[in-house]
Amino acid sequence: MRKESRWIRWIKWIVIVTVLFLLGFCIGWFAKPSNTQNHKDSSHYLKDFLGEMKADKIREHLRKFTQLPHLAGTEQNLKYAEQIMKEWQMFGLDSVEMVPYDVLLSYPNESQPNYISIVDHLGNEIFNTSLAEPVPQGYEDISNIVPPYSAFSAKGQPEGDLVYVNYGRTEDFSQLQREMGINVTGKIVIVRYGKIFRGNKVKNAVLAGAKGIIMFSDPADYWADGIQPYPDGWNLPARGAQRGNVLNLNGAGDPLTPGYPAKEYTYRFSPEDGVGLPNIPVHPIGFHDAILLLNNMGGEIPPNNWKGALNVSYRIGPGFTDDFKSQKVRMNIHTNNQVTRIYNVIGKIRGAQEPDRYVILGGHRDAWVFGGIDPMSGAAVVHETVRSAGRLLSTGWRPRRTIIFASWDAEEFGLLGSTEWAEDNARLLQERAVAYINADSAIEGMYTLRVDCTPSLHTLVYDITKQIPSPEEGEEGVSLYESWHKRDNWTNDRDAPRISKLGSGSDFEAYFIRLGIASGRARYTKNAKTERYSSYPVYHSVYETFEIVEKFYDPSFKRLQAVAQVRGALIFLLADSQLLPLDVNEYAESLRKYAQSIAQLAQKNLGKMETYKVSFDSLFSAVENFTVAARDFHGRLQTLNKADPLQLRIMNDQLMYLERAFIDPLGLPGRPFYRHVIFAPSSHNKYAGESFPGIYDALFDIENSADPAKAWEEVKRQISIAAFTVHAAAMTLTPPA
Amino acid sequence: MRKESRWIRWIKWIVIVTVLFLLGFCIGWFAKPSNTQNHKDSSHYLKDFLGEMKADKIREHLRKFTQLPHLAGTEQNLKYAEQIMKEWQMFGLDSVEMVPYDVLLSYPNESQPNYISIVDHLGNEIFNTSLAEPVPQGYEDISNIVPPYSAFSAKGQPEGDLVYVNYGRTEDFSQLQREMGINVTGKIVIVRYGKIFRGNKVKNAVLAGAKGIIMFSDPADYWADGIQPYPDGWNLPARGAQRGNVLNLNGAGDPLTPGYPAKEYTYRFSPEDGVGLPNIPVHPIGFHDAILLLNNMGGEIPPNNWKGALNVSYRIGPGFTDDFKSQKVRMNIHTNNQVTRIYNVIGKIRGAQEPDRYVILGGHRDAWVFGGIDPMSGAAVVHETVRSAGRLLSTGWRPRRTIIFASWDAEEFGLLGSTEWAEDNARLLQERAVAYINADSAIEGMYTLRVDCTPSLHTLVYDITKQIPSPEEGEEGVSLYESWHKRDNWTNDRDAPRISKLGSGSDFEAYFIRLGIASGRARYTKNAKTERYSSYPVYHSVYETFEIVEKFYDPSFKRLQAVAQVRGALIFLLADSQLLPLDVNEYAESLRKYAQSIAQLAQKNLGKMETYKVSFDSLFSAVENFTVAARDFHGRLQTLNKADPLQLRIMNDQLMYLERAFIDPLGLPGRPFYRHVIFAPSSHNKYAGESFPGIYDALFDIENSADPAKAWEEVKRQISIAAFTVHAAAMTLTPPA
Repeated sequence: MRKESRWIRWIKWIVIVTVLFLLGFCIGWFAKPSNTQNHKDSSHYLKDFLGEMKADKIREHLRKFTQLPHLAGTEQNLKYAEQIMKEWQMFGLDSVEMVPYDVLLSYPNESQPNYISIVDHLGNEIFNTSLAEPVPQGYEDISNIVPPYSAFSAKGQPEGDLVYVNYGRTEDFSQLQREMGINVTGKIVIVRYGKIFRGNKVKNAVLAGAKGIIMFSDPADYWADGIQPYPDGWNLPARGAQRGNVLNLNGAGDPLTPGYPAKEYTYRFSPEDGVGLPNIPVHPIGFHDAILLLNNMGGEIPPNNWKGALNVSYRIGPGFTDDFKSQKVRMNIHTNNQVTRIYNVIGKIRGAQEPDRYVILGGHRDAWVFGGIDPMSGAAVVHETVRSAGRLLSTGWRPRRTIIFASWDAEEFGLLGSTEWAEDNARLLQERAVAYINADSAIEGMYTLRVDCTPSLHTLVYDITKQIPSPEEGEEGVSLYESWHKRDNWTNDRDAPRISKLGSGSDFEAYFIRLGIASGRARYTKNAKTERYSSYPVYHSVYETFEIVEKFYDPSFKRLQAVAQVRGALIFLLADSQLLPLDVNEYAESLRKYAQSIAQLAQKNLGKMETYKVSFDSLFSAVENFTVAARDFHGRLQTLNKADPLQLRIMNDQLMYLERAFIDPLGLPGRPFYRHVIFAPSSHNKYAGESFPGIYDALFDIENSADPAKAWEEVKRQISIAAFTVHAAAMTLTPPA
Repeated sequence: MRKESRWIRWIKWIVIVTVLFLLGFCIGWFAKPSNTQNHKDSSHYLKDFLGEMKADKIREHLRKFTQLPHLAGTEQNLKYAEQIMKEWQMFGLDSVEMVPYDVLLSYPNESQPNYISIVDHLGNEIFNTSLAEPVPQGYEDISNIVPPYSAFSAKGQPEGDLVYVNYGRTEDFSQLQREMGINVTGKIVIVRYGKIFRGNKVKNAVLAGAKGIIMFSDPADYWADGIQPYPDGWNLPARGAQRGNVLNLNGAGDPLTPGYPAKEYTYRFSPEDGVGLPNIPVHPIGFHDAILLLNNMGGEIPPNNWKGALNVSYRIGPGFTDDFKSQKVRMNIHTNNQVTRIYNVIGKIRGAQEPDRYVILGGHRDAWVFGGIDPMSGAAVVHETVRSAGRLLSTGWRPRRTIIFASWDAEEFGLLGSTEWAEDNARLLQERAVAYINADSAIEGMYTLRVDCTPSLHTLVYDITKQIPSPEEGEEGVSLYESWHKRDNWTNDRDAPRISKLGSGSDFEAYFIRLGIASGRARYTKNAKTERYSSYPVYHSVYETFEIVEKFYDPSFKRLQAVAQVRGALIFLLADSQLLPLDVNEYAESLRKYAQSIAQLAQKNLGKMETYKVSFDSLFSAVENFTVAARDFHGRLQTLNKADPLQLRIMNDQLMYLERAFIDPLGLPGRPFYRHVIFAPSSHNKYAGESFPGIYDALFDIENSADPAKAWEEVKRQISIAAFTVHAAAMTLTPPA
């Protein structure tokens, strides 16, 4: 052999050896199982998941679950629970179980109907309000339609003069007593529905000394211009009335077992010691009946903002005009409280890598009557989400984290099913829950999307809605984000669709405000700028049928489909993303706005603030501290080695526990189950989510305080608690050691 | 070429290719970093760690930090803090910081000393108690020795008749009032120290209506037979007296900032609204002075168990005998409460794999005077542990989890430093703390080891003490476990050294009872069967010097070394074991015992239990459920793939959060900061750890209740809460999805 050829041979050998070695190395490297599952197809799966959700299927589900009334605690609602359980099992969830609790519910007495009378001087009932709403066509043969009533009303037959108190808000009663000089002690008050939660109206009436309270739906608040009453349109018929509970639970759940799940062995308070039960009769009526009660009222004519849209003068009383002075109003209320078994349905998809991290999609199933909108438009959406998730499972997908689906019972009686389950599972949820997505009514209007959520979910909501098509006709190719953005821009400061704070009034309450789990809700809504009625006209009436959705709210069911996709994408990405899609910078930004806004509210009393040395500096400084911690945390996320399962878990834990950090175990003053220092309903309206609610309430109380020095001390204390909490939350974002 | 040779060539080629491929594969396989660090040498490191702890060094540390009085809030205690910080840094901790809080402390007025007088009918002081203890030899020139006083006593100069009420326990006052028919309203009570926490005595005196309370150290309770008083022995001299705070904080920490850390911006209650401050004067005296107050007392002779060991009749009064009837007792108390800065020193070793998991070793630094025993015997041990850990770090070791060392301030004023830091870091601790090991006085006797801890630590304590040699002379080659076992076997039922429940009275309180972090403490103790005095005779007197330890308690410093090794091994293994060394079966076993024992306590009222339908069935059934869950969990641990970092973390999280599961966020009745449903001090004695304290207190209250039906309802409620809590804890041990 020639020398040259030998060289070439050597080179060949070296090349072969090297190539083989590298080949072996590479195969060895990649053959070794990595602890971080490469979840290559997550976005592909998301597409399949969303694509699988069908408008027609949602229509089917809604039709199926609105055939019969299914009030909490009734046989029919148990039947629907069993059906849902069976279908979720069929859809392919890993487990589905029925979880019962025995809670205090409230029903009209079947042999003694509730009504309100005008009685003459002999005590004869010369006018009685309707015993029931006229049943809509097609439902005439249905039994078990509960007549309009106020759940948990005290029993009784108080008789007396009426006093009209507008919406029954704290400020209305205050105006009545201070400016108009009217004392309602021993009177029956009549207020219109709207603006605030009805339970707050009842509480105000009790505090003012009234011996009964009547609530009516005024067309000013429950009527859309140019729309026919149901069944020809979606307005509330004159004889329609709004059912609803009138509790002041402040998050306690079952009134007899506050803080603990209502199980068989659980100690129950006697009804006198129960939480939030009113001690006076309460009853709701439609505007047809309201006219007849208001018509002859005497007393002064109120300011214009006390006047509704009825053809009456809205005189405040007390009592009727001279001509009818001997007539009184009598309430006849025989409603019973009774401990009753309720049923949650809980379905699970076990997480592949982190089974001990929970993402929850929950919504209620119980309805006042058919629940066409509330809640079944939401429950149908959940049902379709479960079906779609089941399909995905069958194609080999399994989420990184555990997904829990819940069909709650007895929401209408005070969020009871969801709260009892939260109490039952508090330890697990506290340590393990990543997020709670609420699924009450999916539609309350025909205009655009509405999202209320914790600030850390803002970015995810935007990302998601950009991937979902608009359901509106004529908006083919337009994303839900664009459609929403066009209709409801946030503010002048922020060019993005508006996202609101969470208040209360639905099942997320225990998860968000008591336990501090990042929460959100999404639904289709009305145009808040032009449609000024509260919720939607037929809310909690017998006219909430399948047909009202099919004919008016969403004939194509594409709006519900879009809501299903939003809710579905939220749980999908929260459960399946390697890194939790929670944005700490958004939380910082929101805290900054909230701090400014609460400080501004206090500025109304600038002089007093100086007198009592009240300063928001500590709060601003805490927010600044949080902002820096969030920015640094976000920076570290960029360099996180996601292939290291422990490092990933550690940062995900920091993200998960951020919301928890805002929980004060001592609770807000007088409200031990409202523990979120950043978000809670005002004490004066359960529906209104306030930021820094402790400070907000303390400022509110200054107006009415007999001891302003003490009231301002409370403001200072609340500022200090808020500042501490924000500092403490910032600490959770710093490197753990 | 021949065909054969070609074949051979081919085979050669194939062999070469295969070998090269395999070589590459193997190198590739092993070159890839694995996520589970192989912690091969942990037991080797533990040996080095324990071996590095030296008796002589502990002696040095103790000598150094007991030269001068270092009461909380004084300059000297800050100096020691600075010195500890500097030395911990030198020892090699990753970080050491000083963490200040501004809390309410209490000091005697320097210009108006506290004392008690006997005054004649003209008001002349004919006898005054000592203003100070005689200072021990060698310390005569030391300034800043605070005289005996009751911290947080109210100011005042009440004058009146004395009533002697034995130990001042609830049952003593009850016996006094009911059986002896004596009302202490407007009287000054005198009680002997011992049996219960002094704050409870004060509370009882306040509730009974006394206008002042004097506490004295009776030789029956603070004197060991055959032992000389200090300096010739370790007994309490006649003029020695026990300092101590007399608060009823129930875990609140700083009385002015309950629930929140006492920072600069923190809102402070006014002193009238502070937590647990007594509203009457309180003062401690030695038995020399007590004899002179008790000597002439009139009234009846009490039962024998009210009699101490002084040569007086222990008549209960009220007031003196006929001969001295005109004489009264006057207390002169000028002690001031004042907000004062205190300093914790916090040192850290960052965990290598799980920096977000914390193991804490904390003990206090502040002392009433020199703190020879309390707390510096413990602080010297911590110091040596830090030094040893630093040495280990320098050899390349780093624990899996983060270790936190704490030198707490103001423990003597109500566990203030540790509680404020717990409040400050509550969120981090709640999510991340694995265990808290307490390090107060390391020695209170010369007999054997004493351990109080949560049941899940039992097994670890046994394992550890088997690896540590006995410090007793003549026990060479005997393990600490054997030495301890021989001296203090648990019970007839269990052949193992006795381990007790945690009560309160030291810095673990906020960590264990408020936050639910697995906790334990270890120290050397007396023979409880033969030595009947409370704590140790010179407790909280000026005679707690370095010399009392060196001459009497531990001349070789081997007992302190053994305690250092126990505490050190606990934090080492909790921080460095892959799988957390917590035993869930031991918890189940303990719950079973506690349930039996509380049910047995209730059986005293068997008839009443039937009348009021009280049953413990739900609790027993919950314990059974827990037992099964614990057993199953333990079974799954055996098959756990520890090489999978997520699976390991998930089960470790379940172990870590088990203790947390026993926390009820609503707290025990009237004690919002005592939240552990299984362990808390009785409401009647802070020192006594009771199991199922809610039920225990409810049963206790039955004795004194005016409304037994209501009192039994509370027992039922507490049983229900306990049953629920145990069920909830069981749930945390089941597979997470």
